[in-house]
Amino acid sequence: MTPGPLAHTHFAIEVLAILAFALAGLIEGARRQLDVVGLFASAGLTAFGGGTLRDVLLDRRPFFWVEHATWLWVLLLLCAATGLFLRERHLSLTERAMQWPDAVGLGLFAAGGTQLALDLAMPPIVAVLMGVVTAVGGGMLRDIVLNEVPRALHDHRPYALCAFVGGWVLVAAQYLGATPEMALVLAAVSTFALRAAAVLTGWELPRWNPGDKA
Amino acid sequence: MTPGPLAHTHFAIEVLAILAFALAGLIEGARRQLDVVGLFASAGLTAFGGGTLRDVLLDRRPFFWVEHATWLWVLLLLCAATGLFLRERHLSLTERAMQWPDAVGLGLFAAGGTQLALDLAMPPIVAVLMGVVTAVGGGMLRDIVLNEVPRALHDHRPYALCAFVGGWVLVAAQYLGATPEMALVLAAVSTFALRAAAVLTGWELPRWNPGDKA
Amino acid sequence: MTPGPLAHTHFAIEVLAILAFALAGLIEGARRQLDVVGLFASAGLTAFGGGTLRDVLLDRRPFFWVEHATWLWVLLLLCAATGLFLRERHLSLTERAMQWPDAVGLGLFAAGGTQLALDLAMPPIVAVLMGVVTAVGGGMLRDIVLNEVPRALHDHRPYALCAFVGGWVLVAAQYLGATPEMALVLAAVSTFALRAAAVLTGWELPRWNPGDKA
Repeated sequence: MTPGPLAHTHFAIEVLAILAFALAGLIEGARRQLDVVGLFASAGLTAFGGGTLRDVLLDRRPFFWVEHATWLWVLLLLCAATGLFLRERHLSLTERAMQWPDAVGLGLFAAGGTQLALDLAMPPIVAVLMGVVTAVGGGMLRDIVLNEVPRALHDHRPYALCAFVGGWVLVAAQYLGATPEMALVLAAVSTFALRAAAVLTGWELPRWNPGDKA
Repeated sequence: MTPGPLAHTHFAIEVLAILAFALAGLIEGARRQLDVVGLFASAGLTAFGGGTLRDVLLDRRPFFWVEHATWLWVLLLLCAATGLFLRERHLSLTERAMQWPDAVGLGLFAAGGTQLALDLAMPPIVAVLMGVVTAVGGGMLRDIVLNEVPRALHDHRPYALCAFVGGWVLVAAQYLGATPEMALVLAAVSTFALRAAAVLTGWELPRWNPGDKA
Repeated sequence: MTPGPLAHTHFAIEVLAILAFALAGLIEGARRQLDVVGLFASAGLTAFGGGTLRDVLLDRRPFFWVEHATWLWVLLLLCAATGLFLRERHLSLTERAMQWPDAVGLGLFAAGGTQLALDLAMPPIVAVLMGVVTAVGGGMLRDIVLNEVPRALHDHRPYALCAFVGGWVLVAAQYLGATPEMALVLAAVSTFALRAAAVLTGWELPRWNPGDKA
């Protein structure tokens, strides 16, 4: 990354995305009455679980949170602040407000994860899946640890699908000759736009029809 | 694999086993009312989760589904077909019919996983466990993600045990000087035979007795 | 490890710690009515899951249970013995008696895991977290597989926290010039002491306050 206004913007957006994911984990943890250890685990899994799962699958080191260990301190501070300042009446407000940075995070994580797998010469379908794992895996791991069916698998709202489409946008853009930066931006923006449209319109995936047609 | 009638048979059986596992995952997912993302995750975990878990533990790459990425497209097609054509009244029928390819898959995956770990110079007990992980780990991962106690751990029906015995058959056959192909076939067949016997007779493992003896 | 009385003591304590963790897993499994496969999985995950998870994250091989595969046989024997001899009336007695070796295990695993990560040049906060993962990860994995919210995340009793503090004791001791053995002993003892104090006094972590302050 060359320093400059673009790099600063990129950095600011990344910080926003990680914070959004960590906050989502904290709120989920507070709701489930976890203690401070649970809050940390819930926030950490949501923010870094997807990228870590991807890196384990791709056999890639160091993890983000090893290279940037400062983030672990940020998480610890967030957990303390949650215990001190977050109240029940904040929850629904915070959750609604957080849909937007969460959608930004979805786009960034999906684009970044796909790019990273392509750099390791993965086939396109695998790279796109790695992007989805990066974007959605953290929340899924958190749901599994907190003993729930991962929301991404059964709420019939496009979430992982937006990341999936965004990954293909990246693959297509690169194939058509776009620069890496351009491809990343296109993928992140289209993922975000799809998710935003899904949130605003309440669009639902078609349900499996258990009955007979005739 | 040298081409020839045997290789074709082997390939056909492998395809059958993977499809059986993927279908089992799809049916489980449909039952739990997952959306299309969930169906894909459920089918993919069941079919490839065990081998992937084994490969992560053995630090082995590439994964099967990276080397043969076409299978991911097959899974996507299966999910679409499930949504379009599978109806509730098919479920019990399909499940009963699928016990047999599933038992074939159990045998193949157990034998293959054990062999693979032996090739990496693992001690026999570890190799046999890796065979069990290959055969049973996918279904267990799916059950964990779908928020159930893995059936293999508490239904008191011999499933993992069949894979365990099959793994020892492979170790013993190799020790007694059988060719690798012979050992693989013996292990797969004995796992399958045990599982088939268990299914047909309804054999149950002895239960832990919580009460007093006297 | 040089042979001698100290090494023998160290070995005896390690055996005790692993057995305590394995027994905790067996008891949990017996309680949940698992079959023999489930008992083995529950005991194995509790005893070796934390170290294995740490080694996967640190990309470190061989695993403890691959290097010392005899332990897998010990686990198998324990499972058989549990099925034959453990009765319901033993459970609460055993569990209370086991809090002490469990606390010993917590100390040893936390100190060992932190040291191991420091040897791989991890940043201190990451090393301490790896110690916590080593000490607490096995029980958490077992709870996740057995479909419960991991107790370590929501029972408001200091468990992971003791391991966390112990890890920092090790980092501080090394920084202040203590020998590796000295640092390990200090960390293990302080983790154990904290946990013992928490067990004896029933100390609880402050709860998150969902209501308003005013």
